[in-house]
Amino acid sequence: MKIAVLGTGPVGRTLGTAFAAAGHEVAMGSRDATNESAAAWAEATGGSARADNFAGAAAWAELVVNATPGTVSLLALEAAGRENLAGKVLLDVSNPLDFSAGFPPSLSVLNTDSVAESIQRAFPEARVVKSLNTVAAPVMVAPQALAGGEHDVFLAGNDDVAKAAVRALLSQLGWADGHIRDLGALESARGMEMYLPLWLRLMGATKSAMFNIRVVTG
Amino acid sequence: MKIAVLGTGPVGRTLGTAFAAAGHEVAMGSRDATNESAAAWAEATGGSARADNFAGAAAWAELVVNATPGTVSLLALEAAGRENLAGKVLLDVSNPLDFSAGFPPSLSVLNTDSVAESIQRAFPEARVVKSLNTVAAPVMVAPQALAGGEHDVFLAGNDDVAKAAVRALLSQLGWADGHIRDLGALESARGMEMYLPLWLRLMGATKSAMFNIRVVTG
Repeated sequence: MKIAVLGTGPVGRTLGTAFAAAGHEVAMGSRDATNESAAAWAEATGGSARADNFAGAAAWAELVVNATPGTVSLLALEAAGRENLAGKVLLDVSNPLDFSAGFPPSLSVLNTDSVAESIQRAFPEARVVKSLNTVAAPVMVAPQALAGGEHDVFLAGNDDVAKAAVRALLSQLGWADGHIRDLGALESARGMEMYLPLWLRLMGATKSAMFNIRVVTG
Repeated sequence: MKIAVLGTGPVGRTLGTAFAAAGHEVAMGSRDATNESAAAWAEATGGSARADNFAGAAAWAELVVNATPGTVSLLALEAAGRENLAGKVLLDVSNPLDFSAGFPPSLSVLNTDSVAESIQRAFPEARVVKSLNTVAAPVMVAPQALAGGEHDVFLAGNDDVAKAAVRALLSQLGWADGHIRDLGALESARGMEMYLPLWLRLMGATKSAMFNIRVVTG
């Protein structure tokens, strides 16, 4: 599959590398096609990995991943181009972390809205699925490395076919089917994004970002 | 120990019964000492369990539990009386769930504040500890009944002695020491309260409130 990963930070680079390793063609999109981080990533990843600007990557792709900070995602996707997102699965892994007042960050959108929903409203023809935002990048792409994979990732979206496509991608990253928890409609992204303040305190308490949660029932 | 449980809902009744069973004297506090739910609870619980109004219960108690809805907790604690809370451990198990726009509820305080912190600000001489708000009442008092107790409860507060007292109470309820995760200062209550929107979606997905999360590391 042709996958555009928008965002050149650790999340974008880690996901891009993992998707390329799984056999996908990957274009890393950034504001400027000559972005040094993206170019270095493409060179290190090799194969069919390449750097492009937001619009070039999105236009070419079959599936688009939003790995830009949640506080600027709407601007990045606007640059990617409405027409380049229409009809495509848009996997949103972002978090609306606002560091303007220091650490720990607050959230810039929450409670009765979420980044994922604001993206879906702004790009109604995109098929937005929220996932992976609740774990650090290394955990996203190697769940088996943590507690033998016995922990959970969440999924929310209004389009079941798009959710199935994301589920297949998650499987390729190593997430076992029983640990991919579908939380229903995209509105559930509120819960997934509002978990971040707890995640941040857990990171403080465990002194590491290499953790996740497992839902236990019965 | 003499414990005042403020609030006559399922959480207050469940906690009051468990504390009485553990050998504590328990007064359930409500706006009106003749509250029917509290009276029925006291009769069913027997022993030294009794019903009182907020102020009577708090004045008598050595430790106070806020089990009122987070949206009205400041009012309930004002009725309990500043002087009756001074110097005492105040275990806050509330959540600021606002059902005014239906289900799922939003939070009435969040992001850069929490119910626990607002209580601490309003009653600076109380020793506020946040805990137990992340699980349903039956899980609070019987963690062993779920996944053999292999799941976690959190703790936040500014007073280490008060946190140790709450940790001892949690142990009496069945929480193993290794599953009581201290998240640090009371500011971490933001994370614990903002987890509720995810909790609500997990309840929807699992079709039960009988679940919890386990933090997995390494």
